[in-house]
Amino acid sequence: MTTKETVTRSPVSSGNAHQFADFREHLSALESRDLLRRINRDVKIETEVHPLVRLQFLGLKENMRKGFLFENVSNVKGKKFDGSVAVGCLAASHEVYSIGMGCGPDEVEANWRNALANPVEPRMVQTGPVKDEIHKGSQLLEHGGLGEFPFPISTPGFDNAPYFTACGFVSKDPETGIPNIGNYRAQIKSPSRTGLFTGGDMVTHWEKCRKMGRDLEVAAVIGAVPVFSYAAVTKLPYGVSEYAVAGGLQGAPLDLVRCETVDLEVPATAEIVVEGVIKTDYLEPEGPFGESSGYVDPRTLSFAFEATCITHRKNPIVVSILSQFTPSESSKIKHRGMESVTLDHLRRKGFDSVIKVAHVEPLVNLRPYVVVQMKKKDDKEPWRVMEAVLNYRPEYGKILVCVDEDINPEEPMAVIWAICHRAQLQIDSKIMPGRQARGPMVYLREATDAKSLGDSDASLLIDATKKFDMPPVSLPTKEYMEHAIDLWKQMGLPELELSSPWFGYSLGFWPDELAEEAKLATNGDFYQTGEKLHSRKVELKEGESPRDARRAWTF
Amino acid sequence: MTTKETVTRSPVSSGNAHQFADFREHLSALESRDLLRRINRDVKIETEVHPLVRLQFLGLKENMRKGFLFENVSNVKGKKFDGSVAVGCLAASHEVYSIGMGCGPDEVEANWRNALANPVEPRMVQTGPVKDEIHKGSQLLEHGGLGEFPFPISTPGFDNAPYFTACGFVSKDPETGIPNIGNYRAQIKSPSRTGLFTGGDMVTHWEKCRKMGRDLEVAAVIGAVPVFSYAAVTKLPYGVSEYAVAGGLQGAPLDLVRCETVDLEVPATAEIVVEGVIKTDYLEPEGPFGESSGYVDPRTLSFAFEATCITHRKNPIVVSILSQFTPSESSKIKHRGMESVTLDHLRRKGFDSVIKVAHVEPLVNLRPYVVVQMKKKDDKEPWRVMEAVLNYRPEYGKILVCVDEDINPEEPMAVIWAICHRAQLQIDSKIMPGRQARGPMVYLREATDAKSLGDSDASLLIDATKKFDMPPVSLPTKEYMEHAIDLWKQMGLPELELSSPWFGYSLGFWPDELAEEAKLATNGDFYQTGEKLHSRKVELKEGESPRDARRAWTF
Repeated sequence: MTTKETVTRSPVSSGNAHQFADFREHLSALESRDLLRRINRDVKIETEVHPLVRLQFLGLKENMRKGFLFENVSNVKGKKFDGSVAVGCLAASHEVYSIGMGCGPDEVEANWRNALANPVEPRMVQTGPVKDEIHKGSQLLEHGGLGEFPFPISTPGFDNAPYFTACGFVSKDPETGIPNIGNYRAQIKSPSRTGLFTGGDMVTHWEKCRKMGRDLEVAAVIGAVPVFSYAAVTKLPYGVSEYAVAGGLQGAPLDLVRCETVDLEVPATAEIVVEGVIKTDYLEPEGPFGESSGYVDPRTLSFAFEATCITHRKNPIVVSILSQFTPSESSKIKHRGMESVTLDHLRRKGFDSVIKVAHVEPLVNLRPYVVVQMKKKDDKEPWRVMEAVLNYRPEYGKILVCVDEDINPEEPMAVIWAICHRAQLQIDSKIMPGRQARGPMVYLREATDAKSLGDSDASLLIDATKKFDMPPVSLPTKEYMEHAIDLWKQMGLPELELSSPWFGYSLGFWPDELAEEAKLATNGDFYQTGEKLHSRKVELKEGESPRDARRAWTF
Repeated sequence: MTTKETVTRSPVSSGNAHQFADFREHLSALESRDLLRRINRDVKIETEVHPLVRLQFLGLKENMRKGFLFENVSNVKGKKFDGSVAVGCLAASHEVYSIGMGCGPDEVEANWRNALANPVEPRMVQTGPVKDEIHKGSQLLEHGGLGEFPFPISTPGFDNAPYFTACGFVSKDPETGIPNIGNYRAQIKSPSRTGLFTGGDMVTHWEKCRKMGRDLEVAAVIGAVPVFSYAAVTKLPYGVSEYAVAGGLQGAPLDLVRCETVDLEVPATAEIVVEGVIKTDYLEPEGPFGESSGYVDPRTLSFAFEATCITHRKNPIVVSILSQFTPSESSKIKHRGMESVTLDHLRRKGFDSVIKVAHVEPLVNLRPYVVVQMKKKDDKEPWRVMEAVLNYRPEYGKILVCVDEDINPEEPMAVIWAICHRAQLQIDSKIMPGRQARGPMVYLREATDAKSLGDSDASLLIDATKKFDMPPVSLPTKEYMEHAIDLWKQMGLPELELSSPWFGYSLGFWPDELAEEAKLATNGDFYQTGEKLHSRKVELKEGESPRDARRAWTF
């Protein structure tokens, strides 16, 4: 129930996080830890790749999940591809993610906080393997354009095309020149054109360009070092360069090269880069795409990205993340970064009482259900903390709950248990209107004539922290449980998986007299207590009910 | 997602549920299915018995849990007991419970509904093994009274004595003569006296007796056939005899014998019966006892039970259930019966749209968190159903949620997912005051001078059913997932544990055009769709934002 920061900060903040030269070194690191499944069997990119990886998210525990590298891919028309496809290699699990970050699983949060506090600006290099092959101008489609690469379909049966899913779109604020990288879905519409759906910071760049009467230059980066993706999927304040945060995450600058046809810089060792423009004078229908809310987004009016150049490594690896339904790689890749950034925000607001902000999966995609674990300083503080979470991002916390330090915020039944017994809902809950809707109601508004739907939503806020001293948790105390564990092992009974709480503990209300009686009981002297309680019997008066008597009585 | 009633009703309603002659036959049935752990090692009843069984509830999956029979028990003062102690044998798991009921795990609900519809009255017999030994009058304490038997302490470190935990208290309505059986905690206070804590139907008997100026006669039954306990722990309408419902559960009458010193009947093959009276002119402090809310109940003013006779089998088995913190045997033994009875209530009210009422554990003890799964007939029906649940029992549903038939009501994250995307909380939720508080707030009111605490509580009601056609669940459709499962198996990947949903499905909104595009995509012809969407591009007018354009657009 305590943060591991003190233990892990020192190696991380000294910049020892491991730095990969490219995505392929990361794959080797996964393989050396038996966290990579190489698939040599021929698989179809449209119908087989994602459903196979999906199965491990639906049917295996997180510690059994690995990255998949499909090395023998073809499409349903029989075309064989030179390159391969990596799915799950960025974030099949928290362990895979931490390897991509070059640190241990327990060091991720500290590494995130360090990167936010100590970003490392990238450095320019002359060239890199991303320039192995260059297709531009009249030669743009010489190898088939985007059709040269095996992009899988994420949700076959509903999606209307393959989409970029693990693609960092680089663009610059036309006024400040500060780059932004965002990971957005992009429907492949032709060999040289995709859709591009985002509500992220790129929209600001686009709007500024539109006002200036010009198009927005963009570079789509696929298969850079993992920290590039980890920064790209994390919501950072506007104007913070993801390149610098990625550098902070790996404790060393990213090496960048200049683009061929646009005024942008991209990672020198990326697998594929697509350069191009987004016109600011039109939008285009895009979708359906299975989304992370757990529902298909039928169609929306979105940006269109027109390629001007494609550069790539030889036999490039198409990196794709398993998006859509949660748990997925898209939730796992955001999970701890999102929590770290939100916690960082609350700490900056002065709430050092907050122990953890849990953005919880599965099924729910992290943002709508948020639980704050805290050791409150006063009874008003949980409300101020919830206000700060709501204020931080308009889509966070459709259900937002504060719990005490002894409640596991990631365990939904523990949170419900806290709500049931530590909150009086007429006092301790609030429905807050005016919140930003997400998911299927918004999709329906976009796609249909139900324009009134989903415009705004309401959040449910609950202060489930305890308001007064409470009696202990009703499990045997630690000494008896530890002794039982010893006996259990001696007796050769099946291995236990214990999670907290597994012993009883005080919550403030436990009078000395009761503690003494408990000791008498385990010493076998409980008749003494029985006699004592008998001597305190309460005679009922004429017409007095047990309820009346209880109200008049204090032990 | 459908009830299994049609499949299983026929063998059950034809009265084929297996009938045990006594609790020992049930233990043999458990043992023959490898569901009994015999412990021959010497264990201490005060400090070791319950903590050991507690570990399996905290640290093993439900399908690994078994009944424990401690055959070599002593107390901390070194006394050896002739009898043994059974814990977890009534409801270590749903499977253990179903064996006690004499039916298959899938037949429990149908068996419950059959028993409620077709109770079987008990029959009187002359005598039975419960009369093997009789201690009464001046001989009441000849073998030590209650001290003859190894009653364990449930929550060592907090509890102030051993308590009866699996004891059915039999009493009669003094006006109608209809018996009631309730399973209440009872602090052992002396060799011939216990406390008795209840808010159940026995209170009505006591109040009637008090008005008539007499004491209430009671018999405490330990170790009868399991259906006796299953009926005793289930809240039935006042005036319904648990004996008759237990008979309905086993499809045959229970055999009863007359008591020695009170005007009551008890099961002829019970292990131990304590006869006695509850005086109606005084109450007595009782507790602390670790309760099923997950907190210790410090102390309350309660009934006192004075023994007049003890009858028992030779080498009796003290049956104890693991109560306190949930999941426990006390939640498991109530779980499916409670659900069946609540469902039965709603069906009688005409709500045949209700598929399942889920009283959910762990941590939360079944009653405060209730989820109704239904196929609603209209948008008002979920509210009428929730009203009926609230109206049924004043402590049900501190959190009460209605979900659609495709949402698993027992999976809390599935319910939260439904709330997040199928409810607009400003419309679809309600805080309902005036509900009955339970758990630690009530304990504090009883035990301390904080008399205003916990008098009433409020429920949170949420209609999380869908209000309009929605887009599909974002997983690949069944054909692709089934094919992937085949591939997965062919490739020898680790065994999958899939739960619903594991494929995408329609929720009403899925236009033909989108279905056709999805088919084109999996056929590799997605550029056609890209060209089509490009032809539908929307030119932005002067000053028009993407948001404006989306509002004006329908695909």
